[in-house]
Amino acid sequence: MRLYGYWRSSSSWRVRIALEVKGAPFVYQPVQLLRGEQNGAAYRSINPRGEVPVLEVEEEGRVHHLAQSLAIIEYLDERFPEPPLLPRDPIARAVTRQLAEMVNAGIQPLHNNWLLGIVRDELHGDEKAWARRHLERGLVALEAVARTTAGRFMVGDAVTVADVCLVPQLYAARRFGTDLGPMPTLLRVEATCGALPPFKRAHADAQIDAEPAPR
Amino acid sequence: MRLYGYWRSSSSWRVRIALEVKGAPFVYQPVQLLRGEQNGAAYRSINPRGEVPVLEVEEEGRVHHLAQSLAIIEYLDERFPEPPLLPRDPIARAVTRQLAEMVNAGIQPLHNNWLLGIVRDELHGDEKAWARRHLERGLVALEAVARTTAGRFMVGDAVTVADVCLVPQLYAARRFGTDLGPMPTLLRVEATCGALPPFKRAHADAQIDAEPAPR
Repeated sequence: MRLYGYWRSSSSWRVRIALEVKGAPFVYQPVQLLRGEQNGAAYRSINPRGEVPVLEVEEEGRVHHLAQSLAIIEYLDERFPEPPLLPRDPIARAVTRQLAEMVNAGIQPLHNNWLLGIVRDELHGDEKAWARRHLERGLVALEAVARTTAGRFMVGDAVTVADVCLVPQLYAARRFGTDLGPMPTLLRVEATCGALPPFKRAHADAQIDAEPAPR
Repeated sequence: MRLYGYWRSSSSWRVRIALEVKGAPFVYQPVQLLRGEQNGAAYRSINPRGEVPVLEVEEEGRVHHLAQSLAIIEYLDERFPEPPLLPRDPIARAVTRQLAEMVNAGIQPLHNNWLLGIVRDELHGDEKAWARRHLERGLVALEAVARTTAGRFMVGDAVTVADVCLVPQLYAARRFGTDLGPMPTLLRVEATCGALPPFKRAHADAQIDAEPAPR
């Protein structure tokens, strides 16, 4: 498998974590978003929408390019069942997916670079304040649910897709100066995840395309 | 089961379709968003974030309140396996979930009422133009993928969660005057879905809280 991604893209990072947790062999292929590589013909032939991540997989002799991080992670969880990224209990599964969607649909879309460019350049708004506002609102909601579901991890005592979504989201929140004081549960789980080798290997700063200078 | 929702909320509508396709018995309980019922103590005890939809379910004698439409729909698909809302083939499953997320995370979060209020009242932008722009961009991308995956429905010839997401999204697109001319595949699938009794019963305009006047 080949993962097309970008070191700091939180959705790329989620897929890296899932692959590392599964111990699935893959090649990480950076797409240089800042240099516009996603808009070139080569990448457009892989993903016409020019977005990362894309997971290139082979099934029955055919190559497929899968997009949307949570769809990719569900695919990985079905193809590589161990260790599972969803609990077995039906309610716990639903809550886990809920937490993942609270990040995937509730927070990240509101602070992606493309949207922030529109807020800044077209609406002449303060794009960092916009991002912080949505990050704080979303993370406060996430903390409230996590307080009722977390053990060592976001849901109970095993890594799930909710943790996979949490870790990159908190990294993004810090980039925008979000006050994480009111989110002790999220910070505690993040620290627990951060000590695990799969999370270390998947970390943005550990990728070959990571840039040393902070934004 | 009890579904807390709002007639025109596209995420509430998705869950209604899923319940109707499954033939699962449920009570639909409207939450009067325009009158602020979602912020009252009664509803906050059900969903502290004040969002719809919430599915109230009982498992092993305990009542649970599930949130996030796609998480709820995955729960329903596991609890009521027939008819399935995901294909069996691993790649087709991934593509189906990708299409659903392109709506759930890629389009809907960018035109929800709360966000449009910020664009209008705080950034003094044209909130309808903002909504149209994101709807057009997202639906063009959805059309491009659907052209490669659709049969009678979004993925092949059976209803999936991708259709469940499509139908309410196109209704919302029309409210904002989106030009749907470039999306013939989506319109064709929408018409096919619209002829099916579960989709008719789940339609926004058929709900007890529907309002006659267009926005």
